[in-house]
Amino acid sequence: MVRPFMNLDPAKRNPAWADEAWIYQPAQAALSAADEVGAGPLAGLRFAVKDNIDAAGLPTTAACPAFAYTPPANAAVVQKLRDAGASLAGKTNLDQFACGLNGTRSPFGAVPNAFNPLYVSGGSSSGSAYVVATGQVDFALGTDTAGSGRVPAGLNNIVGLKPSRGVISARGVVPAAQSVDCVSIFARTVATAVRVLESAMGHDPLDAWSRKLVLSSQPFPATFRFGVPSAPEFYGDAAAEAAFGDAIVRLQAMGGTAVSLDFSPLAEVAALLYESALVAERYAAIRGFFDAHEGDVVEPVRSIIAAGRNYSAADLYEVQTRVKLLGQQADAMWSGIDLLLVPTAPTHYTIAQMQHDPVALNRKLGAYTNFVNLLDYAALSVPSSMRADGLPFGITLIGPCGSDWQLADLGQRYHHQSGLTQGATGEPLPAMVPITGLRPPATVRVAVVG
Amino acid sequence: MVRPFMNLDPAKRNPAWADEAWIYQPAQAALSAADEVGAGPLAGLRFAVKDNIDAAGLPTTAACPAFAYTPPANAAVVQKLRDAGASLAGKTNLDQFACGLNGTRSPFGAVPNAFNPLYVSGGSSSGSAYVVATGQVDFALGTDTAGSGRVPAGLNNIVGLKPSRGVISARGVVPAAQSVDCVSIFARTVATAVRVLESAMGHDPLDAWSRKLVLSSQPFPATFRFGVPSAPEFYGDAAAEAAFGDAIVRLQAMGGTAVSLDFSPLAEVAALLYESALVAERYAAIRGFFDAHEGDVVEPVRSIIAAGRNYSAADLYEVQTRVKLLGQQADAMWSGIDLLLVPTAPTHYTIAQMQHDPVALNRKLGAYTNFVNLLDYAALSVPSSMRADGLPFGITLIGPCGSDWQLADLGQRYHHQSGLTQGATGEPLPAMVPITGLRPPATVRVAVVG
Repeated sequence: MVRPFMNLDPAKRNPAWADEAWIYQPAQAALSAADEVGAGPLAGLRFAVKDNIDAAGLPTTAACPAFAYTPPANAAVVQKLRDAGASLAGKTNLDQFACGLNGTRSPFGAVPNAFNPLYVSGGSSSGSAYVVATGQVDFALGTDTAGSGRVPAGLNNIVGLKPSRGVISARGVVPAAQSVDCVSIFARTVATAVRVLESAMGHDPLDAWSRKLVLSSQPFPATFRFGVPSAPEFYGDAAAEAAFGDAIVRLQAMGGTAVSLDFSPLAEVAALLYESALVAERYAAIRGFFDAHEGDVVEPVRSIIAAGRNYSAADLYEVQTRVKLLGQQADAMWSGIDLLLVPTAPTHYTIAQMQHDPVALNRKLGAYTNFVNLLDYAALSVPSSMRADGLPFGITLIGPCGSDWQLADLGQRYHHQSGLTQGATGEPLPAMVPITGLRPPATVRVAVVG
Repeated sequence: MVRPFMNLDPAKRNPAWADEAWIYQPAQAALSAADEVGAGPLAGLRFAVKDNIDAAGLPTTAACPAFAYTPPANAAVVQKLRDAGASLAGKTNLDQFACGLNGTRSPFGAVPNAFNPLYVSGGSSSGSAYVVATGQVDFALGTDTAGSGRVPAGLNNIVGLKPSRGVISARGVVPAAQSVDCVSIFARTVATAVRVLESAMGHDPLDAWSRKLVLSSQPFPATFRFGVPSAPEFYGDAAAEAAFGDAIVRLQAMGGTAVSLDFSPLAEVAALLYESALVAERYAAIRGFFDAHEGDVVEPVRSIIAAGRNYSAADLYEVQTRVKLLGQQADAMWSGIDLLLVPTAPTHYTIAQMQHDPVALNRKLGAYTNFVNLLDYAALSVPSSMRADGLPFGITLIGPCGSDWQLADLGQRYHHQSGLTQGATGEPLPAMVPITGLRPPATVRVAVVG
């Protein structure tokens, strides 16, 4: 295990916690005085940052020691969170270059699942999910390209908020696939994730892919229709299949009507992310470094990124058009549903299983996440239940671009119906909070003038 | 001159008209009975279609005989227009594969300017502009990728409406650069162009790049600010420079305040369209044909498209991100202006000049058009004045995506201030019409109930 940047503060270590979750954990003295101000909407909250996101003065490794640099400035989102009063606890481990959904692809070690160390944490935001689940921080930033902000949330009984594309600036983030990368938020409650998003969001004209989006403020309807894949795949995991059935029943009890959907356009888009010219965006992201230091990149990340060299610009245009056409087909589903319900991940794998068959099993973990950013949807992974084997099961609510607050509204209510405790801490959920981005339900207003 | 598909109806020929404008002009009997119904919002209007747009049963050549095929169905937009009662007059010449802005790049001959046959018509929708200017049809469809729906309008004293991207379906159109192609409308008045757009628009889920756009219905403000390039380039054409100065004065008299703009982000985007990996989209559009029949493609179209083979997918991602970043810079200008005013084309060239230096002069013709579709803006080219040399000068009003009706409102008023007649016909402009897509200016409404 390579740990050139490891700097775990002994005072903060707990033998129950896996060291692999952190890459750099500065002593409190290393943090700027700004962290100690304690004012602002996030005052009192401690957060961790996936180590492909810059924090001023701390090394950014992207889990690749040869790539490391020390940025002079915070990533735009980190600056916003610190300005809002949150305190930075350190940098977390990840699948190298955010390439993977399992948490085993790092020279800093495989991050274990917070509920069973034999199992993967999920990735690529493995460390961020782990330190939130174990209660070491109040929230953490991840990034989500193929599902890295959702899969590890689902596998660790926490909330993963993957905002609409371009809502949070990615300036100061090492790109994975820049046109679809989303900075994401892990927290143990929807309320905290929403509170963080309120401070983190905003158009950034210095980020090429940032957008001026106005999130919908329309309250989520009391009765609603939710799409469910007509033949969901769990790769033989009966516990996951049963847990998903329970999730459908719970949403129905909350006012939902299930609508069976043909998942094939979404599945085709999901497959294109790694198995077409779209993978070239991962090579483009770190092209100069990769060409000079390919040997310093771990497998299978190296071979995945290297495959990006083999496609022509014309290949890319063809697949971009294909994605748009599949998107037209997929978008038609929104006329019949208010949201899409999927398992966050179809199953759990052990670290040993994943290391034995790293590409095929990783792909299976992304079955319900890979298509979301390519199709410009918002998503929220919410804890759903604990399986008999002690592993968590999470669901993901998916809505059109801009539905972030609506998903949060439904997701918070769903989470509070689950009877679950927070992450792996055993702490009960606190009371629900109103989603302030949504208008209150319509009331009759009488204005008396004069 | 190659004319294997030429079928000019002798009854319709006029010795004053250049045959080069048409590729196929069916006898009336060849048109379906549907054309004769004479009902619908476009009843009584005759139109021509650029020959990269399918009309059922007529050959589509894209001005490349080796590429020709006879489609069984109309392009989606042609079907809509015929359903609305318009009558199809034939297919018009173009720069081959819609590659060019000058009208000389076709084996069916160079289309002359409607005001002086020594000069280029502009392209690539050369024939469509010519047959509208000369009064042979009421309107015509073009396509606009780099400016092909605007440059020939400006050079021929007609209106060129380049709608927001994705407003008109491009299904059944031979792609030039599919992600930015726009079907466009030529007419002699803004009113006719608007009337056609109303029938032509609409989301098409079978077209990958079609969008569900809601065009703004906000009336254009009575007083407004318009951006003008701080150092506009006319390549030494003093008549064009003077005409543009007159245009600024007229817009000021109409309530506008000119705002000088740094044009450099727009100019950089314009250059990228042909001089980066973006050109690969032209190769991707006809890849199978081009690889098999490269020798059948005219120069310099062949070498431009062939250059698209030389870029990798990573190159394309890099330039797409660059365009997005330049777009962020450019979009900042909208906070200070309501529209952007540019010359439609900076100057006129003779056919001989263009054929002598086809790439450099073509690029100059696109100085004020190439960036528009890449940056997702709407544009309307409107006649502005006649120069002392008898050649027309046109301006283009550019607004953000969705501003189509607003541009039409201002453009119609501008056109009627010009004192010009229709195209090259000498006919006076008819009375202005309300732009029905815009809400009427606010009025106090009193509802009396009971």
